[in-house]
Amino acid sequence: MRTINVGLLGCGTVGSGVVKLFQEHPDLLDRRVGAKLRIRKVAVRSAPRVPVDAKLLTKEAMEVVRDPQIDIIVELIGGTDVAKALCLEAVANGKHLVTANKALLAEHGLEIYRAAAEKRVDLGFEASVCGAIPIIRSVKEGLVANRILSIMGIVNGTTNYILTKMTESSQAFASVLAEAQAKGYAEADPTLDVGGGDAAHKLQILASLAYGGYIRFSDIYIEGIQKIEAVDIAFARELGYRIKLLAIAKQEQGELEVRVHPTMIPEAHLLASVGGVYNAVHIRGDSCGSLMFSGRGAGQMPTASSVVADIVEIAHNIVFHRPSHASLLPTSAVGSEITLRPMERITSGYYLRVMAMDKPGVLSKVSGVLGEHNISIASMIQKGRDEAAAVPIVMLTHQAVEGDMRRALQKINALDVIAQETMCIRVEGVED
Amino acid sequence: MRTINVGLLGCGTVGSGVVKLFQEHPDLLDRRVGAKLRIRKVAVRSAPRVPVDAKLLTKEAMEVVRDPQIDIIVELIGGTDVAKALCLEAVANGKHLVTANKALLAEHGLEIYRAAAEKRVDLGFEASVCGAIPIIRSVKEGLVANRILSIMGIVNGTTNYILTKMTESSQAFASVLAEAQAKGYAEADPTLDVGGGDAAHKLQILASLAYGGYIRFSDIYIEGIQKIEAVDIAFARELGYRIKLLAIAKQEQGELEVRVHPTMIPEAHLLASVGGVYNAVHIRGDSCGSLMFSGRGAGQMPTASSVVADIVEIAHNIVFHRPSHASLLPTSAVGSEITLRPMERITSGYYLRVMAMDKPGVLSKVSGVLGEHNISIASMIQKGRDEAAAVPIVMLTHQAVEGDMRRALQKINALDVIAQETMCIRVEGVED
Repeated sequence: MRTINVGLLGCGTVGSGVVKLFQEHPDLLDRRVGAKLRIRKVAVRSAPRVPVDAKLLTKEAMEVVRDPQIDIIVELIGGTDVAKALCLEAVANGKHLVTANKALLAEHGLEIYRAAAEKRVDLGFEASVCGAIPIIRSVKEGLVANRILSIMGIVNGTTNYILTKMTESSQAFASVLAEAQAKGYAEADPTLDVGGGDAAHKLQILASLAYGGYIRFSDIYIEGIQKIEAVDIAFARELGYRIKLLAIAKQEQGELEVRVHPTMIPEAHLLASVGGVYNAVHIRGDSCGSLMFSGRGAGQMPTASSVVADIVEIAHNIVFHRPSHASLLPTSAVGSEITLRPMERITSGYYLRVMAMDKPGVLSKVSGVLGEHNISIASMIQKGRDEAAAVPIVMLTHQAVEGDMRRALQKINALDVIAQETMCIRVEGVED
Repeated sequence: MRTINVGLLGCGTVGSGVVKLFQEHPDLLDRRVGAKLRIRKVAVRSAPRVPVDAKLLTKEAMEVVRDPQIDIIVELIGGTDVAKALCLEAVANGKHLVTANKALLAEHGLEIYRAAAEKRVDLGFEASVCGAIPIIRSVKEGLVANRILSIMGIVNGTTNYILTKMTESSQAFASVLAEAQAKGYAEADPTLDVGGGDAAHKLQILASLAYGGYIRFSDIYIEGIQKIEAVDIAFARELGYRIKLLAIAKQEQGELEVRVHPTMIPEAHLLASVGGVYNAVHIRGDSCGSLMFSGRGAGQMPTASSVVADIVEIAHNIVFHRPSHASLLPTSAVGSEITLRPMERITSGYYLRVMAMDKPGVLSKVSGVLGEHNISIASMIQKGRDEAAAVPIVMLTHQAVEGDMRRALQKINALDVIAQETMCIRVEGVED
């Protein structure tokens, strides 16, 4: 029985999980692969968190990616600079590659995909999007007979935990964030999560695959959840909605929208009931209809589960002399068959919370501005009366064009009766 | 560019959908496959429902499966006798095979899997379980690094539609069934759906794959939804539960349970919010944690979407000279590493609706019998007072052994205060 050798770069949380799975399920994995699947080298900077045979350890990651005995490199060190150099060197040396590094693929994927396609090596990155959920595999293979109409995903567990907690406890963003940090659900520097950057990384990977063209990361519109207030969550509930940070890709008339922002979705929508640190992806295809996948989007073993699934698939391909799947990677930039729609031109429903002085004629002024910009109001709530202070006027609009809304908001915020900047949250999922 | 030829057996609802996808997406499919993918022959007994080049049509299905120019046979005629003969003949002739025929695989799969493994041909059956949901692919590849702890699925759209309607409208089973038949959601003879047989077919396929051993269809415990009354749905709601027909496979201590029956699940469980004709599968694995997949489980295009995904994958393998995946099929009977747990020995929570004469001491008698059989009551509702007629006493039990429950029910039903047979529904999902 042939042996397939794996070189592990990094043995932190996920790397230790991978080592554990190799130790716990050796026969299971060997039987699936049809060969002996072994970890041959582990490149680490400090001692790994799980017992690893000392003979396997090395500090020289570059030696591992050049080791002629190694068939598959598993990159789990994170970051984009060193990781990129190692991945490209691994591919240049004909190694197949597995990575969970979403930032790397979202920012430098084109180079890596092209290198892999050119060297005809396999590239597995199931673990880079939504941890344990086999979403890459599903989009790449299961939905191949579809034109993907839309993807809407809760792809960041930290923000979903924060928004769920805010919804359940009516606490403010800052206090829930502090609690999440104390529990280890949020990083000390939470910017990448709460600012939407991490969700955008995953959207870049998923949408590039689904739409068959590499999307530049900088072309994704990104808005975080920092500005969401407890009062907005409460109004959303009252209106029958939940607020989620959604990663959205939509195809309409040959144009593609890619955006990450807080979004109100009806509470009956399947995504609305995905709470806590769970991730979920909702996909509509022209033949499959609506599909949803949910599960743990992060964590040691869920992520390791996907890393090992990729290793097993690639190892199986090696044993049976199958060439790589790399020809299916998005190796050319989006643009030839589908172009990106600028954010100004998307259409959406909108939730507006206008903070206005409680004076006669305010509503008429605000609705007048909206009307001038082709925005019609679907429903309205005005609560509380306080002649001395600003009170919220909450509105849900019908579908409107983003550019119109931006111009209307500028005018509304400039009205003398407006006490603070108007809160605006996009609304999706009403039609599903 | 090479051509891969497909022979279609049957061109009814799903077959017409497959033809449509070939007509609508020719370039998309060719690009994915890396070859020209063409329908070469269509075996039909009567005129197909979509326009098909008359030169492709034939009434001789057996000629199609023997045609040396055809690479992939797609069996969509349904039924088990003729379909089985055709599938085995196709495999014997070295053809790769795609089928959506769940009854065929659940009842004769072992023979077909073994033939495919021996002839080293690929076998695709994504469409046989849950229509558009890529669940076969996910279990076979995505979760390979897991021991699957449990599978719980809403895998029959007809029964889910009926139970959802009963829950929303408080109507009786018979009237909702009649309505479903009028709308085309239920067959004229609904036995296979409402009796649980169809769900059991899908469970057989999914569990055999997940647990790596072929499960005999006759070893699956099957109970339909015919006995569920509106009053039980109402009590379930009051207790915070929904009633769903679940297909369940669970692994515990080296033993496997496989069963299909109406099941109460907490309303907060992800499966509880899967309504109407939607299907969903909830999987727990030792490393991936809880995952859920939901989507359209039937219908022309959702099913065709999965059939074509299988065709594309197999065609891609042919183009790149990849050998088959058939080595991963459950070609030996369950039993060596995991044995089936008899129904008598499963444990479950139970909902009981005891219909008793409203006399002093009734509750003590009933609870006495339960206590004698090691069954403890978690909660109880007794409603209405009517000295002349039977009134319901509703109980939820803690985890109990099925055999104990069966013996207790026999004794309870024999009590002189009991007016009709006690309704018993298993409860799952409380721990998730």
